[in-house]
Amino acid sequence: MKIRVINPNTTASMTEKIGACARAVASPGTVIDACQPDAGPVSIESHYDEALAVPGLLAAIRAGEAEGCDGYVIACFGDPGLLAAREVATGPVIGIAEAAMHAASMIGTGFSVVTTLSRTCGQARHLADRYGMSAHCRRVHACELPVLALEAPGSDARQRIIDTCRQALAEDGSDVLVLGCAGMTDLCDEVADATGVPVVDGVAAAVKMVEMLVGLGLRTSKHGELAAPPAKPYLGWLSAFGHGPAS
Amino acid sequence: MKIRVINPNTTASMTEKIGACARAVASPGTVIDACQPDAGPVSIESHYDEALAVPGLLAAIRAGEAEGCDGYVIACFGDPGLLAAREVATGPVIGIAEAAMHAASMIGTGFSVVTTLSRTCGQARHLADRYGMSAHCRRVHACELPVLALEAPGSDARQRIIDTCRQALAEDGSDVLVLGCAGMTDLCDEVADATGVPVVDGVAAAVKMVEMLVGLGLRTSKHGELAAPPAKPYLGWLSAFGHGPAS
Amino acid sequence: MKIRVINPNTTASMTEKIGACARAVASPGTVIDACQPDAGPVSIESHYDEALAVPGLLAAIRAGEAEGCDGYVIACFGDPGLLAAREVATGPVIGIAEAAMHAASMIGTGFSVVTTLSRTCGQARHLADRYGMSAHCRRVHACELPVLALEAPGSDARQRIIDTCRQALAEDGSDVLVLGCAGMTDLCDEVADATGVPVVDGVAAAVKMVEMLVGLGLRTSKHGELAAPPAKPYLGWLSAFGHGPAS
Amino acid sequence: MKIRVINPNTTASMTEKIGACARAVASPGTVIDACQPDAGPVSIESHYDEALAVPGLLAAIRAGEAEGCDGYVIACFGDPGLLAAREVATGPVIGIAEAAMHAASMIGTGFSVVTTLSRTCGQARHLADRYGMSAHCRRVHACELPVLALEAPGSDARQRIIDTCRQALAEDGSDVLVLGCAGMTDLCDEVADATGVPVVDGVAAAVKMVEMLVGLGLRTSKHGELAAPPAKPYLGWLSAFGHGPAS
Amino acid sequence: MKIRVINPNTTASMTEKIGACARAVASPGTVIDACQPDAGPVSIESHYDEALAVPGLLAAIRAGEAEGCDGYVIACFGDPGLLAAREVATGPVIGIAEAAMHAASMIGTGFSVVTTLSRTCGQARHLADRYGMSAHCRRVHACELPVLALEAPGSDARQRIIDTCRQALAEDGSDVLVLGCAGMTDLCDEVADATGVPVVDGVAAAVKMVEMLVGLGLRTSKHGELAAPPAKPYLGWLSAFGHGPAS
Amino acid sequence: MKIRVINPNTTASMTEKIGACARAVASPGTVIDACQPDAGPVSIESHYDEALAVPGLLAAIRAGEAEGCDGYVIACFGDPGLLAAREVATGPVIGIAEAAMHAASMIGTGFSVVTTLSRTCGQARHLADRYGMSAHCRRVHACELPVLALEAPGSDARQRIIDTCRQALAEDGSDVLVLGCAGMTDLCDEVADATGVPVVDGVAAAVKMVEMLVGLGLRTSKHGELAAPPAKPYLGWLSAFGHGPAS
Repeated sequence: MKIRVINPNTTASMTEKIGACARAVASPGTVIDACQPDAGPVSIESHYDEALAVPGLLAAIRAGEAEGCDGYVIACFGDPGLLAAREVATGPVIGIAEAAMHAASMIGTGFSVVTTLSRTCGQARHLADRYGMSAHCRRVHACELPVLALEAPGSDARQRIIDTCRQALAEDGSDVLVLGCAGMTDLCDEVADATGVPVVDGVAAAVKMVEMLVGLGLRTSKHGELAAPPAKPYLGWLSAFGHGPAS
Repeated sequence: MKIRVINPNTTASMTEKIGACARAVASPGTVIDACQPDAGPVSIESHYDEALAVPGLLAAIRAGEAEGCDGYVIACFGDPGLLAAREVATGPVIGIAEAAMHAASMIGTGFSVVTTLSRTCGQARHLADRYGMSAHCRRVHACELPVLALEAPGSDARQRIIDTCRQALAEDGSDVLVLGCAGMTDLCDEVADATGVPVVDGVAAAVKMVEMLVGLGLRTSKHGELAAPPAKPYLGWLSAFGHGPAS
Repeated sequence: MKIRVINPNTTASMTEKIGACARAVASPGTVIDACQPDAGPVSIESHYDEALAVPGLLAAIRAGEAEGCDGYVIACFGDPGLLAAREVATGPVIGIAEAAMHAASMIGTGFSVVTTLSRTCGQARHLADRYGMSAHCRRVHACELPVLALEAPGSDARQRIIDTCRQALAEDGSDVLVLGCAGMTDLCDEVADATGVPVVDGVAAAVKMVEMLVGLGLRTSKHGELAAPPAKPYLGWLSAFGHGPAS
Repeated sequence: MKIRVINPNTTASMTEKIGACARAVASPGTVIDACQPDAGPVSIESHYDEALAVPGLLAAIRAGEAEGCDGYVIACFGDPGLLAAREVATGPVIGIAEAAMHAASMIGTGFSVVTTLSRTCGQARHLADRYGMSAHCRRVHACELPVLALEAPGSDARQRIIDTCRQALAEDGSDVLVLGCAGMTDLCDEVADATGVPVVDGVAAAVKMVEMLVGLGLRTSKHGELAAPPAKPYLGWLSAFGHGPAS
Repeated sequence: MKIRVINPNTTASMTEKIGACARAVASPGTVIDACQPDAGPVSIESHYDEALAVPGLLAAIRAGEAEGCDGYVIACFGDPGLLAAREVATGPVIGIAEAAMHAASMIGTGFSVVTTLSRTCGQARHLADRYGMSAHCRRVHACELPVLALEAPGSDARQRIIDTCRQALAEDGSDVLVLGCAGMTDLCDEVADATGVPVVDGVAAAVKMVEMLVGLGLRTSKHGELAAPPAKPYLGWLSAFGHGPAS
Repeated sequence: MKIRVINPNTTASMTEKIGACARAVASPGTVIDACQPDAGPVSIESHYDEALAVPGLLAAIRAGEAEGCDGYVIACFGDPGLLAAREVATGPVIGIAEAAMHAASMIGTGFSVVTTLSRTCGQARHLADRYGMSAHCRRVHACELPVLALEAPGSDARQRIIDTCRQALAEDGSDVLVLGCAGMTDLCDEVADATGVPVVDGVAAAVKMVEMLVGLGLRTSKHGELAAPPAKPYLGWLSAFGHGPAS
């Protein structure tokens, strides 16, 4: 089974870290193909960044289809482009917020999300609504770290994340933590040790969710809203996206 | 007051029609600047199309900022890129689904939406949820016409839309109709005559909503989630979007 | 266009203030007809007051119909008698809570309401539910001022309102403020200056919403629940309300 | 225990019927005082009628307070003036829609409401929302009979109600019926016999709910929103309502 | 009328206390038959305890059917086995959380629940959801007392409960208190005196609710989900439960 | 990894079928231990059956703990005893309705459930609510087959299930099917072939979900509501359940 794990931003060190964490949980026989778009923002910290990460993400999925990928992970906690990606792909596509929230709901009675900047909390809450997780998601907390601060050696990022996690548990009455950024994927064990509760990292969870669906022979339904997009021309500098993936 | 009305697809005849309808309802003193992106799909009929209409849309808004636009209308019933556009613009930005649903909720007890293809109904329902309109929106109906069929002379599109509207009223117990596609903007009076209920066209409603907000001196709050996006580099063929609008 | 702005209580100084604020935002060509009932409570601070403000309000609307009003504003944040008024009027009727909440939802991600007495917060929350605004309305705050204290010269009302607004923003994580009483209509700019976020006054917003609907040619649907009330006798000292407005 | 059962319309034959049904279920020791306002509509079939029934209803409650009533029933399925009445009364006040819906939720998994005119269904659904009964209330059905048709000898009202009840059960998958008009209070057994499911009449249910609360020593909380209204002047022909009940 | 009040745990002193409180509010002519299962946990403080209290509870109800009971109260705030009991009984069955929450919603605008251990708060919230009371139930508070501590002479249980009640009112903005454990049934007046708001004890409320339903001639609907269970064999040490109550 | 798959009824042929389907999807290295309680109903078709299946289920889990099971599947679509089981087990416990609904939400926009008897549809809808799946779950359909009819050779059960599935897709506008009974576990491929949409069997999905969670090192949080039950005596014929699993 070949799973393409797409880091939707264009920072290579983050792609590498995400790939390593994905490989660490993949089953024997699963090949992790970690990649990033060839164009777009170096980090995703606004609706603007998120919208502009999607073209590169969709290009990576269309390329993955040509290369025979069995499933895809969108490795940014805003799950950008998820439904568009499902239209384009034949195998399952899972966002890391989606995977983390579903998994967290199965091992506790309420989870807290800890993410980077407070301006991204709204999107996380919105995703909780879309996935049916708004009752399980007690609250979304920001530690006010820019995404790329997680990549900087020598920063106090880890400590701030752990502090925010401890505070979230105390305030929310939650029993599970969800890490709200793909850049935190390597902190899972450390946070679990520090807090004593289960901690869910979306990158790992999404890889296992794709394995689960592929293992069950399940693909995105093409009976309705998520069928391949109607073929049509695209004009201008986006013309390469035209004709639709069905052509 | 200068309002930029952006048709997010790249079909010029539709832009023209939208501009004409916008001008027909604009107050004296309001200048309507109807435009379309220089790149992207010729129509928006899938999540894929919608995602790829956003870069061109955002470019049109950034250009509008340089040209001193006071507010913006996103003239596609999926309201693509609405939150990203709000981050980038200083004046208000209104989607046509948003405007139509809010207006419809003020003149009746429940509305039916009639749109083009059934594969787009999910997005309309999703927007109703986001805007708090899910109780007011009784149901979304498709007449199974592709968007560009509305542009084709001699088609039976008008009749099918009217038939679907009549059926929607009968089935839903609704008292207001909402036209679910910018391409239907010129059908408002005809459908109202045929059905006897108020009919809301989102293009017209959004122009008036922008006038309303500008008239009140209200702009998108920059205190939090919708502040200007953090400045940062964008790589590759999207590099022109980098540095953020604050630079 | 003639818009009747009804202050549902019987305090003339408040009617005057409301009229002035309405005129300040009205478009050229809009005539503001500010009035108050000839009977009822001097202020509205309970469900009891609200219920007993409605007969006078409905009489004012019936009179407005005879005088050719194009639309109506109900200028009390409890939006008393809104649906009854819609049955009676042919043009649109908008409540100031309704207008303010809808407008606020278009320029931010969540708003706080600041009102007078805490015993009225429940009604504001209830209206947020009815209008679909319960997710957008983060919380309703009271500054514990009676309504008429806002009319008293030399009171510390302004400062207490500003203090409560600042606290609301800090506690709720909101990005927009809504003034929760028609008597605060003249404080909009002052509060905006003091807090740095957009502030929505319902009186002004409702005037522009009525202009918006009239400009679109939209009236309350008479196809169902909001049709003119069935004609019938009224007994006793309410007999003048009988026969229905259709007679 | 003395319970005032108020028919909020001014049709005496309906008051009599309501009183008889109330007495039929009252416990030994409970005195039923059935009355109607001295002013207002002869039936309640619109928001307009409902709003104008409230002043007379509140007068009846204020009089009841002077006469030592222990509790009150509002015997119209729109539960008009319920919260205002609770502010004014010291003992409990129960609406018949409220009582019927709560009781129905305790003996089945979902109920259907059958009421008179379709234009009143919206209010019934709205009350279901307020009382938390929207999941239990499967649907509200109208048999399109005016309220006073239920009083007319020789009409086919009973048969139409039974037919609508049967259809409701079949369509909704419900297991309990709720009669949606005080004028149907005498049909309870007949409908139960005809349909084979439990049928809840709000008048009877509300009497027993008041007995229940008085028996428990429970009264409306005066700690907050439902405390006695602030004392104040009322102007004009409503001046008798002024000074507040606390004066 | 004979009402069986079942304490689902096996602690006799608690059964006695519950029986006394039930008798104190029962109408003349109502016989209270307080009992407890012959097997199961001595207190219910976990989902595990709750699940294992149900077989004994169902046995007590089946026995009650043979003895001609007219209705049943399940006297544990988790309302264990409520729907199963309704299938088995012919008369009404009411849980004490159900009764308390419904009654509380009729005398105020929002209630706080005060219960024993925080690990049981989730079940109380879950019941609030099921009964449609989630908007009325502001919050569930624990005073961190084990259930049987309420039985221990000389403990500080009463004071801790009162302290938690006071804190709940202050924090929640509620106007009614609900006691969240059958073991608190004797504290109702004391807490009401100490806090000045209405206090609802579920045991008393449930007895009156059963009286109310029996007085109305209402029984659990057997038209659908709550019909008697299909007859069938039960194997092993549960074989006595087989053949179904219909045999 | 050793996963205990518990059929909560006592029909051995069904346990065998469930075990076979579980083994068919299990990863290399996963041992499936299919078992059934030593006491309880031969099928689960009512709340009564469900409640009385739980003691045997909990005994099977306590035994599994002693035998070193890594995780558990509860193989009945009512997910009986799920939270109690989570308190008792150290590894994850997944219900088949839970697993199926979560998986279905990841591969489509809305699913239909097809189950056995209509009297069990309420429990399925209730679980959809608890898991946050009520928006994804379009409707629950019954084919009115008793559970054990699925075991009877020569019955027309398969055809009736397929017919109901086809009807569900047509009526609900759904794009995924969920099989609503463990006894249908062997029909997954056949129904998928007949309908052309993805079909989710809960037994298979739950096995993969447990593998997913164990693979991520995630266990039920013991920080709060799902901690091991407090130790205590159990009386009578349930005394073996006492002392708690922590003893």
